[in-house]
Amino acid sequence: MKTLAALVFPGFQTLDYFGPMEMLGDLGEELRIITVAETLDPVPSVHGQRILPDKAIADGSDYDLLLIPGGESAHEAAKSSDLAAWIVETANRAERVMTVCTGSILLATTGMLDGRKATTNKLDFTRTVPLAPNVEWVRQARWVEDGKFFTSSGVSAGMDMTLAAIADLFGVETAREIAEGTEYEWHDDATWDPFAKRAGLV
Amino acid sequence: MKTLAALVFPGFQTLDYFGPMEMLGDLGEELRIITVAETLDPVPSVHGQRILPDKAIADGSDYDLLLIPGGESAHEAAKSSDLAAWIVETANRAERVMTVCTGSILLATTGMLDGRKATTNKLDFTRTVPLAPNVEWVRQARWVEDGKFFTSSGVSAGMDMTLAAIADLFGVETAREIAEGTEYEWHDDATWDPFAKRAGLV
Repeated sequence: MKTLAALVFPGFQTLDYFGPMEMLGDLGEELRIITVAETLDPVPSVHGQRILPDKAIADGSDYDLLLIPGGESAHEAAKSSDLAAWIVETANRAERVMTVCTGSILLATTGMLDGRKATTNKLDFTRTVPLAPNVEWVRQARWVEDGKFFTSSGVSAGMDMTLAAIADLFGVETAREIAEGTEYEWHDDATWDPFAKRAGLV
Repeated sequence: MKTLAALVFPGFQTLDYFGPMEMLGDLGEELRIITVAETLDPVPSVHGQRILPDKAIADGSDYDLLLIPGGESAHEAAKSSDLAAWIVETANRAERVMTVCTGSILLATTGMLDGRKATTNKLDFTRTVPLAPNVEWVRQARWVEDGKFFTSSGVSAGMDMTLAAIADLFGVETAREIAEGTEYEWHDDATWDPFAKRAGLV
């Protein structure tokens, strides 16, 4: 059984986190999901639902997988040096690291994506990518895979990226079964990204 | 500002609830979302994330909108006569009632959908619809609108149904903006349902 640290911080974007949770949670016995936050206090999503963390960052950084959601408040979260240190330590140890939306920026500002290809939210792209200038930002992509890093475009794209990461780790048939079981039309082509054009990026 | 009672019960399906939360939450000042449960104790999703309710069912039933997610445990939830009474009272008062997946069965077993068209999860369809034989169950539909009731197919379909309900209440442009902002490809045709065929229902 693998373990996943699923990070939350105040104001995280609801679907950035819970879309991947649905897909990863459907792995059942294959994966133990642990919700991690800076402290054990309830963490509100941007839409106000309060989540109880299972572990605090002080409890350790030894997880097989790491998920980082985004949200407008990811920029605030990026200011915590304790959180940045935990992200670096956890990402260094993990075999796969997944980020959704501006969660990519939160990871990138630690330097972990320097020299790598990555993507993030398209509507905020021009405003956010200068915060991590040493990343090779991809303007049009539903998600980008570079080594152990899977970074996705905005909000809903997290589900497509997560299914790709599941396919990579557990086989494409497992990913397809989860998509089917959730009646989800998986965009399984990483280059599918109509939002880049609509945001004027290409 | 309208109010939404978003029901949770132990083992609710993660995306059934949080997909609609993303779309409805993005209405911002237009809508106040209140997470309601039988008691104020933390409620675990089927994937283990623990949610803190804002209100208990004993706190009242006066809400403009009602959302009922599904999950395998919806059948267990349906056995609570207190919860059934609250659902009937809240649904009677509300101007719109939305159900996702087997949340449709949870609503239907109260009798509230008798004589109406509705849909639910496709993989469990044959097993679950006999629990509410007086509903006109639609075998192939992403979602069904009948009067104030919006009922959706499985898990992911909740997002498409919710955007249709938002279009109905706040205008289609608002729904399209939310889909665009979340980089979500809205299946805006209620008859789009490839899963019905794959489940052998048509």
